[in-house]
Amino acid sequence: MRNILSAAAVIIAMTTQPVVAGERAVILIIGDGFDDTHVTMGRNYLKGQAGQLLLDQMPFRGAVQVETVDSEGTAIYVADSANTATTLATGAVTQIGRIGKNAADQPVKTVLESAAAAGYKTGIVSTASVTDASPAAFAAHVTIRACENPVTIRGGEKYGVTFDGCPEDLKENGGMGSISEQLAVANVDVILGGGMEHFIAQYESDPTALALAQQQGVTILTERVALDQQHSGRVIGLFSEDTMPVAWRGANGRIAESIERSWLNHIHEMIGSITQPEIIECEANPSFAEMPSMEMMTRYALDHLSRDNDKGFFLTIESASIDKKSHERDACGSIGEIKQLEEALAAAMEYASDNPNTLIMVTADHSQAAQIVPDPTLYTSLPIPVFSPGKVARIATPEGSVMRINYATNNISSEEHTGANVPLFANSEGESVLSPFMRQRDIYDAMMRYLEL
Amino acid sequence: MRNILSAAAVIIAMTTQPVVAGERAVILIIGDGFDDTHVTMGRNYLKGQAGQLLLDQMPFRGAVQVETVDSEGTAIYVADSANTATTLATGAVTQIGRIGKNAADQPVKTVLESAAAAGYKTGIVSTASVTDASPAAFAAHVTIRACENPVTIRGGEKYGVTFDGCPEDLKENGGMGSISEQLAVANVDVILGGGMEHFIAQYESDPTALALAQQQGVTILTERVALDQQHSGRVIGLFSEDTMPVAWRGANGRIAESIERSWLNHIHEMIGSITQPEIIECEANPSFAEMPSMEMMTRYALDHLSRDNDKGFFLTIESASIDKKSHERDACGSIGEIKQLEEALAAAMEYASDNPNTLIMVTADHSQAAQIVPDPTLYTSLPIPVFSPGKVARIATPEGSVMRINYATNNISSEEHTGANVPLFANSEGESVLSPFMRQRDIYDAMMRYLEL
Repeated sequence: MRNILSAAAVIIAMTTQPVVAGERAVILIIGDGFDDTHVTMGRNYLKGQAGQLLLDQMPFRGAVQVETVDSEGTAIYVADSANTATTLATGAVTQIGRIGKNAADQPVKTVLESAAAAGYKTGIVSTASVTDASPAAFAAHVTIRACENPVTIRGGEKYGVTFDGCPEDLKENGGMGSISEQLAVANVDVILGGGMEHFIAQYESDPTALALAQQQGVTILTERVALDQQHSGRVIGLFSEDTMPVAWRGANGRIAESIERSWLNHIHEMIGSITQPEIIECEANPSFAEMPSMEMMTRYALDHLSRDNDKGFFLTIESASIDKKSHERDACGSIGEIKQLEEALAAAMEYASDNPNTLIMVTADHSQAAQIVPDPTLYTSLPIPVFSPGKVARIATPEGSVMRINYATNNISSEEHTGANVPLFANSEGESVLSPFMRQRDIYDAMMRYLEL
Repeated sequence: MRNILSAAAVIIAMTTQPVVAGERAVILIIGDGFDDTHVTMGRNYLKGQAGQLLLDQMPFRGAVQVETVDSEGTAIYVADSANTATTLATGAVTQIGRIGKNAADQPVKTVLESAAAAGYKTGIVSTASVTDASPAAFAAHVTIRACENPVTIRGGEKYGVTFDGCPEDLKENGGMGSISEQLAVANVDVILGGGMEHFIAQYESDPTALALAQQQGVTILTERVALDQQHSGRVIGLFSEDTMPVAWRGANGRIAESIERSWLNHIHEMIGSITQPEIIECEANPSFAEMPSMEMMTRYALDHLSRDNDKGFFLTIESASIDKKSHERDACGSIGEIKQLEEALAAAMEYASDNPNTLIMVTADHSQAAQIVPDPTLYTSLPIPVFSPGKVARIATPEGSVMRINYATNNISSEEHTGANVPLFANSEGESVLSPFMRQRDIYDAMMRYLEL
C-alpha cells in the first residue's frame, strides 16, 4: 500500500502545473452524516480528547442549516442524502428522495453541469456506489433515488417493500433514464467509487450503462492498481458491486448492542441488575484490503482533472459510510471512514498548497443518530439500574479511555437521520464566499460565485 | 411587562457612558446544554426552518471541544456543568462535579476574580439558582457542586441518594464554606438569579449566607420590580427558591412521552400497531409571570456594571434551563429558554453597539440528549411498526409543521448529557482573540487576553 501511494504521489508531483491566471478549482468534500457528534467521535478516537483533526486546523468554520420540504412546500426538519445533495448541487430546496430535481419534480442544472458547460473539468468520487444519492445528485436527475439502474427505475421490491420507480424518467417516456445510464453519458471527466452492479444491470435487451459508457470511449477501471496509472479522456472507476467496504470494523464484527438485563430487571426496570456490553476494539476491516482508499481516489482524480488544464475544475468527494455505518450502529466503521476523509482532505490540501486558487470545503449533508453518552451514566449514585433504551457501543480509544456511543432513534435495523445544523470547514479561499451561518443552498451559490458561473 | 421593560430601557439610555480609552468589557453568555441540536430546535421554532436566529447573524462562529478528566487524568468524553464551567472560568481541565477547583482538587483563580482584582467590575446572572454549577464556578471553589449551602456542604441525602459533602471546604476545617457563603462575601458587584433557599439555609446557629451578605452591606433584591431601580454597591437578587421557572411549557404541562403500543406489539415489536404521542403546542408558563426575564436581569446588570465605571467589567450570564428542561424531556421548556437567551443577547448587542470595546461570546458548556428525528420515520414504507425506544415530543411549529424531538439516552426521569463539541458565537471583537476551533480552556485564555489580565 505504501509503495502504491508513493508511486501515485510521484505521478502527481510530476504532473500538477503551477497555477495560471484565471485557473480556479472547487473541491467539495461531503461527509455523509458528518455532524458535530461524528466530528467529535473522530477527534476523540483519532487524535485524543485534547487533539485536533486536520479539519480543526482549517481557517474557516461555520454552520449550515439543512432545508427540506414536502410536496406542499411545508418545512420538514429531517432530511435524507438525496434532497440535501440536490440542494448542495443545485441550490434548490426539495423533497426527500429527489436527485437533481426540485420540489416540483423538474430537473435543475447542477454546479457540476454549469462548470462543465463553462469549460471546467469535473469529477465525482464516492466511497458509496457512484449511483448513490450524494454523488448522483451532481450529474443525474431522477424523481426517486432508488432509480439507480435500468431495472430499478421500473420499480420493484427491496427488503420486502414495494417501491414505485420513476416512470417519467424512463427513456421510452422521454426521460433521461436511470442514474447509471445518465452517469455513463454525462459530461464528467472522472467518476470513481463503487456500484458496478448498477452499470451491469440490464433490462431486457437494452444496453447496460457499462455498454453505454464504453460506446462513448470511456475508460473503465475496476482494480485499485489501475489508479497508479494515468488515462486520457473520460474515466469511470467501479471498484465494488455497491457501497465500498469500509476501512475499519469492530473486532469480531461487533456493533452496538442492547444492555443485558437480569430476570428481575425484566419484571421491573427499577430493580435487578443490568450488564453493559463489553468494550469494542476497532480493527482493520479485511474486506477493505483490495479497495482503493478515498485518498488514492482523490489523488487520482486531482491528477486527472488538473493535467493539461488551464481552466480549472469542480470535484465532489463523498465519504459515504460515516452515515451508512451510523445507520448500522457500527461506530468503528464510521470512525474508520472519518480517518479516510481526513486523509483525502490532506491530499486536497497538498494540491491546494501548490495551486492557490483552490477552494476546499468540507461539510455534511445532514446529521445522524449517534450520540456520545457518559460511560458510566452520570447517575451512578442512584440505587437503580440506569441504561440506554437503545443500543450502545463502548469503544476503546487509543488514549486509554472508553467512548460510549448511543444509537436510539428507532427499533429497526437502521437508525434514523437527525435534524441538527451541520458543520462547514474551508481553507482560506472560503473566506471570500462563505459566511459563519449559511443555508445549504447558499453553498451552491458560493461555489457558483467562486467559479465565476 | 412592556412598561417595566421600557422603564428599564430609559434608565440604561440615561446612564450608559460612551466608551473611553482603556475601557473593556467581556460578556460571556453560557447556554447550558446549548449544542447544535438545541440551536437548530430554537431556529426551527422561533424563526422557521429558513430563518435566522440573532445568534446566526453574529460575525464569528466556531466550535469548542469540551474536556473532562477523571482523578487519574484520563480523558472522560462526557462532561457535567460543574467541570465545564470551571474550565471556562479558570482554564483548568478538571473532574466532574468540581466548582472552581482543578483535577487535583485545588482552588484556581477565575477570570472573574482576576478581573475584579484588576479593578474591573464583575457580575453573574443565571436563570438557575446562583449557587448552581455554571454561575458558581466563576466566584466559588468547592469540591462537589452539591455543596451549595451551609447544610448541604455537610453531605446528606437527596432523591434517596447519599452524598458526601465537602469536608475540606468547611470553614471549621480552614475552607471557604459552601457556595452560597462564598458568594455572599465574594467581590462580585451584581449577582442575579434564583436560589433564595441556599441563602437562608442555616446550620445550627451559624449565620446564613443571607446574613453574611447583609453584614457586608449587600443590597438584596427579591422582587422583579426592584430591577426597575438602580442601586449602589454590591447587589444580590434572588427571585426564586431554586431554579427560576421557565418562560414556556407544553400545553397541559405535556413533555415527551412513550409510544403507545398495541397488545400485539407488546408480544413482538415487529407486529401489531403503535400510536405516536399527540402533537404538543408550546404556551406561556404561568409560573414565569412573576419572574424577571433573562433580558431584564441582563439590562439591570449591564447598567449596574457600566455606571460610573471607566475600567470596564466582566459579566457571565447563564441560560440554565435549556439543559434542565432537556433533562426533563420538556422541549417547549428548552425552546422558551432559548428565546430568553436570544432576548438577553439582543440587550447585550445593544450595549455593545454603544460601547465598542465589548466582547460578547455565546457558547455552551456541553451537549445534551435531545435529537430532532423524522416525523414520520424515514422508513414509512416498511410494513412494521417503527418507533423510538425512548420518549418523543412532537412540537407544533408556528410555520405549520411538526418537529419531533427524541430523548433516549436512559430509562430514568433525567436524561444524560452528551459529548459533541459545542458552538461558539461572538461579535466582531472576538475575531482578535478567538479561533474557529478551540478547546474550552482556550476561551478562558481569550477572555484574559481581551481584558489584558
